[in-house]
Amino acid sequence: MVLTGTTHLHMVSFPEIPLDRSGRRPLYRQIKEALIAAIERGDLPPLTQLPATRVLARRLGVNRITVVTAYNELAAEGYISAHVGRGSFVLDRRVGVSRDEVLPPPRLHLPRDWSAHQFNREMMRLARRPDIISFAPGMPATDLLPADAYRLALNTVLRRDGPEALQYGLIEGYPGLRRVIAAELHDLGIPVEAEHLLITGGAEQALALALRTLLRPGDTVLIEQPTYLNVLDLLADAGVEVMAVACDEEGIIPARLAEALTVRRPRLLYLTPTYQNPTGACMSVVRRRQVLELVLAQGVLVVEDDVYRHLWLHTPPPPPLVALAQGQGIVYINGYSKCLLPGAGVGYLLAPPDVRPILTRAHQTLEVTANELHQRALALYIEEGEFERHLRRLRVAYRERLEAMAAALARFMPAGTRWREPDGGLFLWVTLPPDGPGATTLYVHALELGVTFAPGYLFYPAGSAADAAYMLRLNFTLYPPDKTTEGIRRLARAWERATGRC
Amino acid sequence: MVLTGTTHLHMVSFPEIPLDRSGRRPLYRQIKEALIAAIERGDLPPLTQLPATRVLARRLGVNRITVVTAYNELAAEGYISAHVGRGSFVLDRRVGVSRDEVLPPPRLHLPRDWSAHQFNREMMRLARRPDIISFAPGMPATDLLPADAYRLALNTVLRRDGPEALQYGLIEGYPGLRRVIAAELHDLGIPVEAEHLLITGGAEQALALALRTLLRPGDTVLIEQPTYLNVLDLLADAGVEVMAVACDEEGIIPARLAEALTVRRPRLLYLTPTYQNPTGACMSVVRRRQVLELVLAQGVLVVEDDVYRHLWLHTPPPPPLVALAQGQGIVYINGYSKCLLPGAGVGYLLAPPDVRPILTRAHQTLEVTANELHQRALALYIEEGEFERHLRRLRVAYRERLEAMAAALARFMPAGTRWREPDGGLFLWVTLPPDGPGATTLYVHALELGVTFAPGYLFYPAGSAADAAYMLRLNFTLYPPDKTTEGIRRLARAWERATGRC
Repeated sequence: MVLTGTTHLHMVSFPEIPLDRSGRRPLYRQIKEALIAAIERGDLPPLTQLPATRVLARRLGVNRITVVTAYNELAAEGYISAHVGRGSFVLDRRVGVSRDEVLPPPRLHLPRDWSAHQFNREMMRLARRPDIISFAPGMPATDLLPADAYRLALNTVLRRDGPEALQYGLIEGYPGLRRVIAAELHDLGIPVEAEHLLITGGAEQALALALRTLLRPGDTVLIEQPTYLNVLDLLADAGVEVMAVACDEEGIIPARLAEALTVRRPRLLYLTPTYQNPTGACMSVVRRRQVLELVLAQGVLVVEDDVYRHLWLHTPPPPPLVALAQGQGIVYINGYSKCLLPGAGVGYLLAPPDVRPILTRAHQTLEVTANELHQRALALYIEEGEFERHLRRLRVAYRERLEAMAAALARFMPAGTRWREPDGGLFLWVTLPPDGPGATTLYVHALELGVTFAPGYLFYPAGSAADAAYMLRLNFTLYPPDKTTEGIRRLARAWERATGRC
Repeated sequence: MVLTGTTHLHMVSFPEIPLDRSGRRPLYRQIKEALIAAIERGDLPPLTQLPATRVLARRLGVNRITVVTAYNELAAEGYISAHVGRGSFVLDRRVGVSRDEVLPPPRLHLPRDWSAHQFNREMMRLARRPDIISFAPGMPATDLLPADAYRLALNTVLRRDGPEALQYGLIEGYPGLRRVIAAELHDLGIPVEAEHLLITGGAEQALALALRTLLRPGDTVLIEQPTYLNVLDLLADAGVEVMAVACDEEGIIPARLAEALTVRRPRLLYLTPTYQNPTGACMSVVRRRQVLELVLAQGVLVVEDDVYRHLWLHTPPPPPLVALAQGQGIVYINGYSKCLLPGAGVGYLLAPPDVRPILTRAHQTLEVTANELHQRALALYIEEGEFERHLRRLRVAYRERLEAMAAALARFMPAGTRWREPDGGLFLWVTLPPDGPGATTLYVHALELGVTFAPGYLFYPAGSAADAAYMLRLNFTLYPPDKTTEGIRRLARAWERATGRC
């Protein structure tokens, strides 16, 4: 399989390479040394694609052989992966290096160099290529989206409401959908009136709305480490201080949270207690209560992102924080993009009484409401019980797919690879053996073999956690068992290639 | 007709009223004087609804009669409109005042007090009330939206593409839609490749994207006076200097534009050359060339908003500026919300080569793309010729509705009322007789009689143009001829009431 050279995840400005043309030092060596310096400074982060040799030769005014020689030496010394016709990528030079000598993890360049949006865009592109098995995107399985049932809902709405369903809707959202959501939240134990809900164009927009409205530059925000990719971008844009709190299999660790709270008074804690992205962790009820006690006592607002709640596999998860706290101090965010209709972009936000007016006002001003027709169709679809039926079907299929992926990991991946099967959500969080290649090196080889994943360090704030380099996030829901197995087989082969074992 | 007290267009903080309870001055007079002071300072702008007498009495700890007396005196002196059970609104005190003594026009409070979004929201609400004939909203007629034809397009797409149509789409937009739009623009004489187009969630989002990306605080922006309501909000948010250029029936006046250009070097000119909102003016080809020559010579970027182009009534309009300038120096914006599918939110932007990279990048980062299913259905709908068929039907109906409105204005409105029938678009721009009530006073009476419109001063930047107080914008497309006629009859009756002639 040959990939064309258009896959570049990084859009970095290529460094200037000043050349001494006096003949005292070979040009190829000057080029090589300039690139090594740029890589070590972090100006060319891992996975940056270097220009084609022809292009760089023209730009520098040198013979192409000069550049080819420089690239060959860089590849031989483990700085880049150079394969003719496939493009050359900067590697993180961890292969074969013992853990003690390890450099700090690759820097996250936010928001300029490597933004979540660029990554997502690239993932979307690769996910559509039939030759690539992509476990990377954070979306639900396409083959299980209920095209027929939803088509019926659209038809019923258009027949029932006529042209009204195509007109501009109310900014605060379609009343029928707000009622349906309020009823659902009520069943979860959340005190809510339909009028308190703000409908948005997806949970992502709800999150952006909350962060943009509630934060001021200089505020401190606590996050789980690792955390949702896009929230790192949003926080970088907001100009706030980010403090990452360590997590275990049950999510954020109360003792670490307590420590963080003594260092600084944060404005806000962003949390995904249920089937967290990327780790899949789900907080127990006890852990939820511990965390609530710590933050609410200090007046720290919690933004609870609950977009994976519906995706439990065997038993429903514990109640959301907003139910345990009876609505106080929690901005609750959810939506239908991860469990039902990614493209429809319907999400919502429920704010506690004290910040509700300011969020309601911002919601009106920013016009972030969802599409009217989708809101009406979705309300009907949920009311008629189709959503529940869809989720039941999804659970059966996702259980199978998770089992297939876990079995394939156990069978094909090298000893020392670790993971924990999640109880729900979309993701399997994998740790590679510490004596092999890191995730970014693996990524380059995996792409060549036709499989991709999300390198773990994307989910960490800049400069934190050396462990991140060995993590990867696999979306286990996207393919039927056979194709899932084939994808993991390719991944294992890529790992062997990256270690030079094949 | 009795309106409940929930119609308040302004959300202003009500002023503190400190009371001297020594008995030296009657409490009702202190309240009255405090309110007059607040009205004159502009803290309570025209159309602000005052609290109910009961509510204010409780808040101030006085007898309700005290507040009723204060309100009665304010009403008698023309400061407020007080009708028991209907709420009391602040008036602009122009009724019966000669033009020489006229105060500056009501201040536009942007974005805090009276924002375009709040106005739009209120308009949407009123437009859905069956007892009110609302000529105010800037949307196309609901009864003419092609619910059945579009339903077929949705069905065909969902049957053809299956679940893929419900999945997340590409950030840059659905390729099929970009191709269709490129073909349409090509026919207009615009040099364009499909890949140059950025699909957005409506023309409004395209405009926000362009202004947010291309402007820096302190930049100067030229606008037409009057202009699109929301652009005033967007510019206020961007922290730029706004220079309004006077217009005549053919749009922006070249001599005035030339003057403005000598005062300051603006970054950008925002323009709707075709069926402008709110005036309906359409620039001739000659005028278009004059304007282009002036601004392009000085390197001023033009943002051309062309969302009314398809809505011509008798003959197609002249080519857009972007065609005349062959794509250079013009950011072209269009969409389908004003002519086809308001609720779908599909728009697009075509940038000139020099700013294309920065806009493309911002488009990726801000995730402002349109809904995937709608993009696919729309592409099909246009390709199959349904869009053209829809526009032909629309033209027949809109011509009738415009004729009905113009005839009713001539028949019912007082002598001295002026308007000019537009050649397309959605709006009739009306000037009231200068010796009668202003538009905001008329608005209060009109609402009571079950008809609404957009007061003209909304479309002017703060503090400009005293004439604005006598203007109103009527959307002539929204109702069949009979109901249109009835609406204008109510409007005329409201005018008479406001002058005290009935």
